[in-house]
Amino acid sequence: MQATQSTELTEFQTQPDEYRHWQFSVDGSTATLTLNVQEEDDGPDYLLKQNSYDLSVDVELSDAIQRLRFEHPEVKTLIFGSAIARVFCAGANIYMLGKSTHPFKVNFCKYTNETRLGIEDLSENTGVRTIAALNGTAAGGGYELALACDEIYLVDDGASTVSFPEVPLLAVLPGTGGLTRLVDKRKVRRDRADIFCTVAEGLKGKRAKQWGLVDDFFPLSKWNDKIDARAKAAIDASTRKADWAGTKLPKLTPTIEEDSMTFEYVDVKFDHAERTATLTMRGPGADAPKAADAMIAAGADFWAIKAFRELDLALLHLRMDYPGINVVVLRTTGSIADVLSLDEALYANRENGFVKEVLSNMARVLRRTDLTAKSFYALIEPGSCFAGSMFELALCADRSYMLIDDDGENKIALSALNGGIFPMTHEKSRLENRFFGEPDCIAGLMESAGTQIDAEDAEEQGLVTMSLDDLDFEDEVRLALEERASFSPDALTGMEASLRFPGAENCDSKIFGRLSAWQNWIFQRPNAVGPKGALTSYGQPTRPEFDFKRT
Amino acid sequence: MQATQSTELTEFQTQPDEYRHWQFSVDGSTATLTLNVQEEDDGPDYLLKQNSYDLSVDVELSDAIQRLRFEHPEVKTLIFGSAIARVFCAGANIYMLGKSTHPFKVNFCKYTNETRLGIEDLSENTGVRTIAALNGTAAGGGYELALACDEIYLVDDGASTVSFPEVPLLAVLPGTGGLTRLVDKRKVRRDRADIFCTVAEGLKGKRAKQWGLVDDFFPLSKWNDKIDARAKAAIDASTRKADWAGTKLPKLTPTIEEDSMTFEYVDVKFDHAERTATLTMRGPGADAPKAADAMIAAGADFWAIKAFRELDLALLHLRMDYPGINVVVLRTTGSIADVLSLDEALYANRENGFVKEVLSNMARVLRRTDLTAKSFYALIEPGSCFAGSMFELALCADRSYMLIDDDGENKIALSALNGGIFPMTHEKSRLENRFFGEPDCIAGLMESAGTQIDAEDAEEQGLVTMSLDDLDFEDEVRLALEERASFSPDALTGMEASLRFPGAENCDSKIFGRLSAWQNWIFQRPNAVGPKGALTSYGQPTRPEFDFKRT
Repeated sequence: MQATQSTELTEFQTQPDEYRHWQFSVDGSTATLTLNVQEEDDGPDYLLKQNSYDLSVDVELSDAIQRLRFEHPEVKTLIFGSAIARVFCAGANIYMLGKSTHPFKVNFCKYTNETRLGIEDLSENTGVRTIAALNGTAAGGGYELALACDEIYLVDDGASTVSFPEVPLLAVLPGTGGLTRLVDKRKVRRDRADIFCTVAEGLKGKRAKQWGLVDDFFPLSKWNDKIDARAKAAIDASTRKADWAGTKLPKLTPTIEEDSMTFEYVDVKFDHAERTATLTMRGPGADAPKAADAMIAAGADFWAIKAFRELDLALLHLRMDYPGINVVVLRTTGSIADVLSLDEALYANRENGFVKEVLSNMARVLRRTDLTAKSFYALIEPGSCFAGSMFELALCADRSYMLIDDDGENKIALSALNGGIFPMTHEKSRLENRFFGEPDCIAGLMESAGTQIDAEDAEEQGLVTMSLDDLDFEDEVRLALEERASFSPDALTGMEASLRFPGAENCDSKIFGRLSAWQNWIFQRPNAVGPKGALTSYGQPTRPEFDFKRT
Repeated sequence: MQATQSTELTEFQTQPDEYRHWQFSVDGSTATLTLNVQEEDDGPDYLLKQNSYDLSVDVELSDAIQRLRFEHPEVKTLIFGSAIARVFCAGANIYMLGKSTHPFKVNFCKYTNETRLGIEDLSENTGVRTIAALNGTAAGGGYELALACDEIYLVDDGASTVSFPEVPLLAVLPGTGGLTRLVDKRKVRRDRADIFCTVAEGLKGKRAKQWGLVDDFFPLSKWNDKIDARAKAAIDASTRKADWAGTKLPKLTPTIEEDSMTFEYVDVKFDHAERTATLTMRGPGADAPKAADAMIAAGADFWAIKAFRELDLALLHLRMDYPGINVVVLRTTGSIADVLSLDEALYANRENGFVKEVLSNMARVLRRTDLTAKSFYALIEPGSCFAGSMFELALCADRSYMLIDDDGENKIALSALNGGIFPMTHEKSRLENRFFGEPDCIAGLMESAGTQIDAEDAEEQGLVTMSLDDLDFEDEVRLALEERASFSPDALTGMEASLRFPGAENCDSKIFGRLSAWQNWIFQRPNAVGPKGALTSYGQPTRPEFDFKRT
């Protein structure tokens, strides 16, 4: 597998003219994403019937959301619909899940969860109000997609429902945030949610509205008019500023070799035998644009977009295609002054429509880092540029090691961008998260933003885990990496998930904490995935057989 | 198993003169619990070396905490120590865990977690300040026990440490809240917590104090004086009122038969074939004492103590000894007026030391209900008394069905005790939890406390899931129970854990949500429990072998 993985990477990139499952159109302020899944698309293994999806469908969705942010600043509302009569979406394809490995299921759910959070982010931060126009039944992941939208409408055609058939039919949980969003976001009463989650056929419009599962329901005769009216209201209410023309996002073109993945600003070198990778991110040049107009003119080549898009794709491949890599060393190269100078310009222009998207994208990629089940160690050495936005990488890391160099050149720095513009999934800034026990120190740290800090001061101020001199650094780091790579990866995943997010949890972080962990558990249970489990038996003539011992 | 389970119930009851593992003493305002685990206590299966514990050790601990509340109102501080030189406690016994089934491990961890939360409750609500006097190494569950205390001191003897060896040595997580309490309660910086959790040998006093893992460390020569001084300060700061003399808690004496478990106020009838049980709780009589003095005089026979102690024990047996029971029907019998009258008296006397303990105990038992992995359906029928404190049972339930009877006698009612005196694990009252989506209705509901509400109004006000008339009730309930009992118990456990606790999470609820779910996952992974897993291999000459694919 490792020897041939250079030719087998999962495809996470696409573009609208290649979409096969979504019809994507923009008409003035309104964008429409119409689901029209090609059944036979992915070969003979399984058919994507009833608008059910696999990863390739979600990759297109994720791509479309990203393009709405960057390519279509004029869009103020996004409407989801279906091209298939009476079916909106049947959720994740069961045969695909049944044939998948445990790690694939876990990573698939994580990716689809991030895409749903991205839809909520599109509304909250970009100002595009999202409307699920369910012109047919939305089951399982189909209804979870609707739950990620601001508004949900269901057609009243005597047949269409919203439903979560996972528990009664498949012995798994709705895995894309559905349970949490039901009670936390839609605030459906818990006993009603309990009933809803066990009625495989779901609920039609009237009851669904009464219980808060949908916002309204309309007969087919009035459907288009009603949805148009909702779209118009959404457009009128949107605060999105179309103060720029949009920028195209071409596909990234990494060079993939057996032991490396090389982008323009990001490269990853694999040591498969040691189960480690080194991810190096190159900082911006002195010539990076500093005025909003110049940033817009640079478009997708602008460092702040491109470097983070590259990091994002590298993370996705690391998760899905490199399961044998347990530890990722994070390095940076470049000029601290250049990072600080660009950070200052980004911060000054943060209200500009384009810059806002650039910053939101950086925030999402950093959250993807926090949620990646690999151990991250940041190594801060001379020639690195862990400053401001790039210091967030060190704050994402489980640990950071900083070399005390003889001439005191090795530095880190904070910038205004460490002050909260990149919130974690539970809404704290990474400084708030790190200094959860001493929040009073944060104001002082932010006051000295822009100051370059040497290794001993950085340790003293708590900004790095430890500073080490030349004599110790190499040995200490080598031993730490060897040790980490020798531990059970499962225990590390659970440990890191528990230590990375101190403090109160919200809806988003509960999806990744409480719900995902329960789903991971269930995805291993014989009642779901055993030879007679419900997921395995789905579509077979035999009924599943359960071990009825409650745990 | 089912045929013989009447003789095989787990022993959850003990009393101080039967303790074999803890030395329990009370001297004035100071109680001491000294751990002195008998190695050979539990037969040839495993030896409880190094003060490691199994369930029987924790049952004694839980019992002692309960007796400090009820039998020793004069106690204002509790000091934990060890009778073994250089060892405080080595945590849960590894051989015991290695030989345990998955369900036992999960239930064992849940019980020990509840005991640790009980220690925190003893401090918060009873006013007994708790001090972990670690006169030797506290490893794994040993250090987690310390984390449940208000203050932690470690002896400075050149050898003793605090440690979490679970991840590096056993490929599991510290399962008793340790990871969450490290970063959420002690607010240890996350990268330091990361290091601490991977250094099997742990940290000695100086570094442990620097990182916030302990509050201080003292040399042996000063140990007793320093701990005495801390105890004295704790006593001086305690607000506990010793305004009553304490009441003895005799063991409960249920009658256990194959198809039933019968207490004075609680009985459980099992239908093993249907995988359901019916738990009926009898309300207080009209003669229940209403003045604090009379309540104290009634002591352990007072309904408000006895009925909830019985419910508590029934829940523990249901979890551990009846895994085949998937659904529990909750019923009550008695007089609504009598419940309301007693609730009023309890509320009026809630500041009395004894009554406060009675109410805290009810709160803990109700939380144990919320955290029990069985489906609960409340059936509200004529002759029931789902009022006030007993209506909390219906609020714990996943669903409640109320009969619309012909003569309109079937009623429920709220009392002042529904207003927040019984908080859930995430601190909300059950009304706040139920009406998370319409919090404004709660004030109105509480204003009508004491009013008896019939079935149709109860449904209208959202207090029950549904009201049904005679024609439908029996069939609807029967079908609902049959259906529930046919679903995969794993999926139901994950679903209920996700729906029962809407809203923000705190340290306690994260322990049961995020951390426990991850631990459940890991407790099934081959790297921990497979033939070559770390838990299986512990103490063997062979080293564990891991599948290094990260999930």
